[in-house]
Amino acid sequence: MDNFTFYAPTYFAFGKDTEMEAGKYVKRFGGSRVLLHYGGGSVKRSGLLDRVKHALEQEQLTYVELGGVKPNPRSGLVYEGIELCRKENVDFVLAVGGGSTIDSAKAIAAGAVYDGDFWDYYEGKPVEKALPIGTILTIAAAGSEGSPDSVITKEEGMLKRGATGEAFRAKFSILNPALMQTLPPFQTACGITDIIAHLYERYLTNTEEVETTDRMIEGLMLAMIHEGPRVIEDPNHYQARANIMWAGMMAHNNSCGVGRTQDWTSHDIEHELSAKYDCAHGAGLAVVMPAVFTYNLQHNVMRFAKVANRVWGCPMDFECPERTAKAGIRALQQFLTSIGMPRNFAELGAKEEDIPELAHTACYGNGNSGQIGGFVSLSEEDVANIYRLMVF
Amino acid sequence: MDNFTFYAPTYFAFGKDTEMEAGKYVKRFGGSRVLLHYGGGSVKRSGLLDRVKHALEQEQLTYVELGGVKPNPRSGLVYEGIELCRKENVDFVLAVGGGSTIDSAKAIAAGAVYDGDFWDYYEGKPVEKALPIGTILTIAAAGSEGSPDSVITKEEGMLKRGATGEAFRAKFSILNPALMQTLPPFQTACGITDIIAHLYERYLTNTEEVETTDRMIEGLMLAMIHEGPRVIEDPNHYQARANIMWAGMMAHNNSCGVGRTQDWTSHDIEHELSAKYDCAHGAGLAVVMPAVFTYNLQHNVMRFAKVANRVWGCPMDFECPERTAKAGIRALQQFLTSIGMPRNFAELGAKEEDIPELAHTACYGNGNSGQIGGFVSLSEEDVANIYRLMVF
Repeated sequence: MDNFTFYAPTYFAFGKDTEMEAGKYVKRFGGSRVLLHYGGGSVKRSGLLDRVKHALEQEQLTYVELGGVKPNPRSGLVYEGIELCRKENVDFVLAVGGGSTIDSAKAIAAGAVYDGDFWDYYEGKPVEKALPIGTILTIAAAGSEGSPDSVITKEEGMLKRGATGEAFRAKFSILNPALMQTLPPFQTACGITDIIAHLYERYLTNTEEVETTDRMIEGLMLAMIHEGPRVIEDPNHYQARANIMWAGMMAHNNSCGVGRTQDWTSHDIEHELSAKYDCAHGAGLAVVMPAVFTYNLQHNVMRFAKVANRVWGCPMDFECPERTAKAGIRALQQFLTSIGMPRNFAELGAKEEDIPELAHTACYGNGNSGQIGGFVSLSEEDVANIYRLMVF
Repeated sequence: MDNFTFYAPTYFAFGKDTEMEAGKYVKRFGGSRVLLHYGGGSVKRSGLLDRVKHALEQEQLTYVELGGVKPNPRSGLVYEGIELCRKENVDFVLAVGGGSTIDSAKAIAAGAVYDGDFWDYYEGKPVEKALPIGTILTIAAAGSEGSPDSVITKEEGMLKRGATGEAFRAKFSILNPALMQTLPPFQTACGITDIIAHLYERYLTNTEEVETTDRMIEGLMLAMIHEGPRVIEDPNHYQARANIMWAGMMAHNNSCGVGRTQDWTSHDIEHELSAKYDCAHGAGLAVVMPAVFTYNLQHNVMRFAKVANRVWGCPMDFECPERTAKAGIRALQQFLTSIGMPRNFAELGAKEEDIPELAHTACYGNGNSGQIGGFVSLSEEDVANIYRLMVF
């Protein structure tokens, strides 16, 4: 295990009706003038937004609103939010939505107290200062409710980049599993896939002797395999939603990723797909992960055999661990397909002829300088080969 | 899963030489005049205390010292510490040691800013205010470095009681696995047993549908089964120490215990043993757990079968799950014995003739009112029967 620091000071309020206490928590963490940030119509239609406004009003808090966050959130709205915060002297940003809304809120919170262009943070400047942020989560997926990360797409050039920093940890996050009961199965499955990806991208490490975090990751994966099909079958299954919601946070707050190198190849390769085809991030990951793992398998057969055996229940082939390792990747893909995820380029709406461009942007765009991958270092040619595995 | 709140804002600095940064962290969290609190001679002999003092001096921090914390830490030293803090205008309490030292530091930190008797907190008053606390951990066991809990023994009547509250979460905890390399095997094994107990006491729940936290607990147990024997065999095994150290924190910061009823019967029943015979807490737990689990087995055979199958690798007997459940308890006991833990009253130095008194104090002392147990409600007679199971 490598040396590390870990600091996750987010207050979590978990369970039924917890959004009713939003005002109380904003106040506790020093807010008085709130930017209420959200996405499309669903938080309005469901009545959630009204309940949150009521909760703020009950504590005599004032707020301004900025809706309209889209999946793969854009810089345009971030600039708008920053201007609004300054004009209205906002001192707290409250995100009501999923990972996109939370990531957009984080960007606004940092930009509002920074003299330069907020995009600097997405080009590598550490995020050391931001308005306090709160979240009311409506989909378990990105883990942004407990992570120090944010991903924004800049319209100019469609650059999709991440920023990170302790100031991006929410002061509080409200997790009410019941808010997810209206989510369609496809979006639910995308969320589950994203959670599984966060676990795999940590599992695929070159650090040896990390059994404690390995076991935690395996445990969270096993829980997803148990709960995923239950919630796809019955979207109203509160308990399955609850288990997925807590796992989604734990998968990405990094308590199971400390002290080890991590991968993030699948995320990097997927980002190009959702940037170009505007597909759902989770759906893209479902297509990307099996291809990346197949391509990287020889780098550490035993690690892939371990996850295959312990998580997917594939019998260990002691004479040929590679067979076990491959069976694990097939089991992952079968699981993802079973919950409704796509399996190849065609199902995703991606095009084979774009592969050279995708591979080039993955390796040279987004601040990368030719090689990507924390587990295996991959060139543009490697990445093109990986995209090709997704065609069939 | 039940509604819950979770807030664990401790900053962890993990790895080699991290104690050198103690001064930096004290400063970061607002300290300037430090109470340096520790136990016996080992932190002096190992040179750790000198390194910590040097780290404080480097940041121009002043400190006063209070050593002498004993296992099952006593109220007498707490009163002494409180007086010292007031006299010297201490604004930060830094514990250098194991759970006993940290628990004693927490009591002092709360008492120093409270007009009444600090013992009020150990009789149920919620701990809402305390001086900021930092820890430099020297043994993975109690989990106090990341928990909101403290257990103190009052000399008058030898009452051993716990207090809890958010103010008892350390501001920072320094976890250097190398500091544990000098620990004798017996103390190491006691620590591992305590960690396993923290996991079992959460696992034994009456809340249904808690698969995510079940899987996290199982994962942490599996990691202990892997790492325990390695570190007993080779006390210098840094990586095994590191895995145990992070697991010890995760086992008790409650991220794997949220949203469920918990048990704590084994801790309650053990407390009487260490209070009366001054045995090591972990050694007591090794004797207590198999007895408690055997006595409570019928309450939920499937839960015991689940941990037996998933953690201890006992084949599931689908016709008679009770056989699997019992095999799991035997496997636990065999594991604990294999790392050098006692198995019965005699090995612990406890006496059969004391059982009525032990059972009575367990059920009526320590603020209890006749029944104990969060998994199964146990009367004085039940508890006496459980103690009797430990005689052979």
